[in-house]
Amino acid sequence: MWAASAKPPIEGEETKGTGHETCTRRKRGGDGVGRPHVSEVIGRTLTRTFWSGVEGHNVCVVSDSPRRRIPEAALSRLPLYLRVLGELSNGAVSQVSSEQLAELTGMNAAKVRKDLSYLGSYGTRGVGYDVNFLAYQIQRELGLNHDWPLVIVGAGNLGQALANYGGFTERGFSIAGVFDTDESKVGGVVGGVRVRHLDDLSQVVQSKNVSIGVLATPGEAAQTAANRLVRAGVGSILNFAPVVLSVPRGVSVRKVDLAGELQILSYYEQRRASNNAAREAAGAPARVVSA
Amino acid sequence: MWAASAKPPIEGEETKGTGHETCTRRKRGGDGVGRPHVSEVIGRTLTRTFWSGVEGHNVCVVSDSPRRRIPEAALSRLPLYLRVLGELSNGAVSQVSSEQLAELTGMNAAKVRKDLSYLGSYGTRGVGYDVNFLAYQIQRELGLNHDWPLVIVGAGNLGQALANYGGFTERGFSIAGVFDTDESKVGGVVGGVRVRHLDDLSQVVQSKNVSIGVLATPGEAAQTAANRLVRAGVGSILNFAPVVLSVPRGVSVRKVDLAGELQILSYYEQRRASNNAAREAAGAPARVVSA
Repeated sequence: MWAASAKPPIEGEETKGTGHETCTRRKRGGDGVGRPHVSEVIGRTLTRTFWSGVEGHNVCVVSDSPRRRIPEAALSRLPLYLRVLGELSNGAVSQVSSEQLAELTGMNAAKVRKDLSYLGSYGTRGVGYDVNFLAYQIQRELGLNHDWPLVIVGAGNLGQALANYGGFTERGFSIAGVFDTDESKVGGVVGGVRVRHLDDLSQVVQSKNVSIGVLATPGEAAQTAANRLVRAGVGSILNFAPVVLSVPRGVSVRKVDLAGELQILSYYEQRRASNNAAREAAGAPARVVSA
Repeated sequence: MWAASAKPPIEGEETKGTGHETCTRRKRGGDGVGRPHVSEVIGRTLTRTFWSGVEGHNVCVVSDSPRRRIPEAALSRLPLYLRVLGELSNGAVSQVSSEQLAELTGMNAAKVRKDLSYLGSYGTRGVGYDVNFLAYQIQRELGLNHDWPLVIVGAGNLGQALANYGGFTERGFSIAGVFDTDESKVGGVVGGVRVRHLDDLSQVVQSKNVSIGVLATPGEAAQTAANRLVRAGVGSILNFAPVVLSVPRGVSVRKVDLAGELQILSYYEQRRASNNAAREAAGAPARVVSA
């Protein structure tokens, strides 16, 4: 797993520009020769890349233009690439081709290359991508080079499970607070955190600089809770409640619809049964259909 | 909420063919006059539609060709439409336009119309869609006209939360069994179901005719557990474990990557901060960016 504080590797491919960098120097190979000493993060906004090389140009140009936006579909695949790269790195694999990445992620190679090109990462023909550097590029793009404290609203079964879910903290998302309006839950401890009343939300969000909220309330409480999160200053919401939230422009919402996922699987199951029955009716042997 | 056993409404628009029906009779209006008495499900494969009308053609033609496949992206939006339609129906709303559906689901109207056209549902110009009949069409397409028993593998925090999650049973997914290999968990009760050893999986899957498995194990146990599910005869897996599963062709997998969702939100948060900082540096007031 990639810790959020992972240091960028010294061995690196060149970065070909991610929209906020305009570095064009080539990787030359050999320790300290033409290799970028990536990267010093300036505030949370700009990335400056230093080269130590033989040609005298030691500092890369850094533009201060707003970051280029990655299309949603490509963005949604970056966590998957990152996870696979983490596994490769743990297995001491240092180079990976787009074909290998495609196989490991269930994508096709052209899509992998296209997705990674948004990071300014094009790999090296015949060699592929440097596993550690590509992982570093994705982490940087996703903002995973520092911790993100989050709050969970709703301390029911799902909220408790999320608070206890090791996968969040493991990936740099610490739990700054768990909130509920149910007095029977307030004061209890979940995931090592004391449940507080929703009235305390603003104070915690502001004092701990929280920008991400996880919504795990029942559907009927979700919009009110979302309003409270937005008023408190949270800019992004991960919504597990089975409602479509209405939020002001500028607030990001990702929705996880657990039952909806099962409904999609039941479509495939019904389709499989239907096709098999049709084949049987036609006298052909039943076959499974792929999803 | 739509119960899985909801009866189709008698008032219906015509169905214009969903690939497995070829009914072409027009809706005439007036009780029992030209209205389809939808639908008798024959096995789990074909839908036969009867008309009682004034013109003497009482039985609609039913084709036995395999069902047409809905594109994955459109399919993934059907549960959302269904949820919104359920809320409209609860609010005694009987007609809805594609524009209203678009607003309620955060989509655009053209996409809504296109998605629903895969169901053979085109609405009526100037009137829109019949809420109950459209919901019925989606339920039928998703195979929600009967219960789907499922098994949960992994009785840790997440597995327990999923077993306790009311949203599954509410939507017709009953929990036929919860399994673990950890002897300290086997024998305990979660979600009203006794945790059994994974060795009992096949027996439960076969005796209860289970076709959907939910995988809530740690990453390192996931592939083995998936193999057991497949061997037991499960055709669809909802995977919460942070690994890419390798399954035989014909087995459907949907992945829910909880930490990955947060990583996508941290991208938006970082981008927001970055853009604001760039604007501040340029002397302009900071603004939020929309996701």
